[in-house]
Amino acid sequence: MRRLFSTACAILAAGVMPAFADTDLRAAAQDFFEPIPLSPPSLDGNIVSRTRVDLGAMLFFDPRMSRSGLFSCQSCHNVGLGGDDGLETSVGHGWQRGPRNAPTVFNAVFNIAQFWDGRAADLAEQAQGPVQAGVEMNNTPDRVIATLESMPGYVDAFAAAFPGEDMPITFDNFALAIESFEATLITPNARFDQFLQGADSLTEEELRGLAAFMDEGCVACHAGVNLGGQEYYPFGLVERPGADILPVGDRGRFAITQTVTDDYVFRASPLRNIELTAPYFHSGTVWSLEEAVAVMGTAQLGADLDERDVSDIVAFLRTLTGEQPEVVHPILPVRTDATPLPETDF
Amino acid sequence: MRRLFSTACAILAAGVMPAFADTDLRAAAQDFFEPIPLSPPSLDGNIVSRTRVDLGAMLFFDPRMSRSGLFSCQSCHNVGLGGDDGLETSVGHGWQRGPRNAPTVFNAVFNIAQFWDGRAADLAEQAQGPVQAGVEMNNTPDRVIATLESMPGYVDAFAAAFPGEDMPITFDNFALAIESFEATLITPNARFDQFLQGADSLTEEELRGLAAFMDEGCVACHAGVNLGGQEYYPFGLVERPGADILPVGDRGRFAITQTVTDDYVFRASPLRNIELTAPYFHSGTVWSLEEAVAVMGTAQLGADLDERDVSDIVAFLRTLTGEQPEVVHPILPVRTDATPLPETDF
Repeated sequence: MRRLFSTACAILAAGVMPAFADTDLRAAAQDFFEPIPLSPPSLDGNIVSRTRVDLGAMLFFDPRMSRSGLFSCQSCHNVGLGGDDGLETSVGHGWQRGPRNAPTVFNAVFNIAQFWDGRAADLAEQAQGPVQAGVEMNNTPDRVIATLESMPGYVDAFAAAFPGEDMPITFDNFALAIESFEATLITPNARFDQFLQGADSLTEEELRGLAAFMDEGCVACHAGVNLGGQEYYPFGLVERPGADILPVGDRGRFAITQTVTDDYVFRASPLRNIELTAPYFHSGTVWSLEEAVAVMGTAQLGADLDERDVSDIVAFLRTLTGEQPEVVHPILPVRTDATPLPETDF
Repeated sequence: MRRLFSTACAILAAGVMPAFADTDLRAAAQDFFEPIPLSPPSLDGNIVSRTRVDLGAMLFFDPRMSRSGLFSCQSCHNVGLGGDDGLETSVGHGWQRGPRNAPTVFNAVFNIAQFWDGRAADLAEQAQGPVQAGVEMNNTPDRVIATLESMPGYVDAFAAAFPGEDMPITFDNFALAIESFEATLITPNARFDQFLQGADSLTEEELRGLAAFMDEGCVACHAGVNLGGQEYYPFGLVERPGADILPVGDRGRFAITQTVTDDYVFRASPLRNIELTAPYFHSGTVWSLEEAVAVMGTAQLGADLDERDVSDIVAFLRTLTGEQPEVVHPILPVRTDATPLPETDF
């Protein structure tokens, strides 16, 4: 995929990408994009059993996984809000602010790596991050394990989810269970997916938006099943946006690789359900999808998209909203006298 | 009911209440207690329609009802945690602490009034409180209305839930919808309820605990369908507990009635699902159910319950855990450019 996109980028840079004829639009789209599958994918190194998914749901929704007893995965990745929290940057332990906008958990399983800078290889690795981050859940692996071991409900659920293991309650298994649940949070059957599958499910305006999305070059970075989430690009490829949108202190993937070519490099945002997940960008400072599209045009493509292009592209982006997952709120295990007490002092 | 309990209290105070013979135990219990019904009750002044319940669920789970966008009713009344938050006192806007332990929302519809001091007549009146409290959700009715009116999803849901009304989006209707949803959060079919209905569902220890609960006089304040929640009593009727448990600054119902006989008076706690809702008392300072029972014995009954009495009564109290409500997390309406932005500054 990297090669295809790089080639596309080069073509774009040279300005030679041809406009798509209407008749070829579906075929061209099918070359670039894939529908969200109807069922969760299998996972490398994880067994997505019913017991493991159910355990993962409990862990995902349990605020006792945080030091304060106030935050769970659900706090920042709300299954009722498109899988994120609708805040510029999240609020965590002691009312501290997280450094970046919380990305959606929906369809995250299809991303090449997790976090804005891709520093976690998969959802299991990701799940070990926020629980330990001082500005988020501010917990420690030992305290998480002690909490889980104190409750018979969790002891039984881990034994069922990790059969045959001598010590099923581990921090790695905690993460694998959460990954199993999160992999079920996919949003198939968007109108755009119906279009990819042959249905005439898009309006004229939305079709124009799709054509513009490909013509103008958005597709160079936002392709594949998630229309993004596959590759890393400098934010400000053509023109760096202002510090209100691209804060100078956050150099993106540079912090991971210490490589100068990774300065201000971020993973291209997946665009699935994008109308549900304002505000936009890693800084979370842009609330309007129209503005976000215009900023991308200028910063990444060097294109001053006119009003009609923007509104067409936004209309197309709204067709990426799929069926939201139906999640039954889990009943969480009862604490015991051995359960660590919440620590809300700050 | 007030008269019956007062009489029971007087009898208790005189020390003349007879021990219950084992054979009479079920009959005696049936005199004092009622099972949780299988279906939600009807509500005075509210129409519990499907559309209204569904709207109420959306509002209950929507963090955008708070100024910060971080807190919803669910934050402190978690449907996965027995209907409360498992914290001493709740954490709210700006990491402020609430003054009292969050009571469970489960079966709250059966309480005579809401809050520890009964200052709200019903769940609808209650629902207007935390959303405005500076230390909780810190919002205003106007800002709630503006938020709701900005989202077509809410405009449609209010129109469906309040048919025939010219302006369905009002702060009162907001509260009525939440009340409608909360009234569905009942926990029938506890083993104790099965016993009341004729089944031999309790162990010897639990039956001894039930007998002690009535013999020792707990039943004088904790009776009815919720085993409490019906009347107001001074905390420290016989002996005032220490300030760690009964902080001197919180004079309970006195703040509402300005009547000296209401000094340190609180609504007797409902005991349904009590094993799920630690920590205990309005101060939330007691984590063990055994300790809570012992404190009640000393403070309210002047009885030094021995270890076996306490463990029997606790065994009985654990039979009050009913079927927890199954709640599908609602999909919340999409914001628009007119939706007020979250205000997380503090």
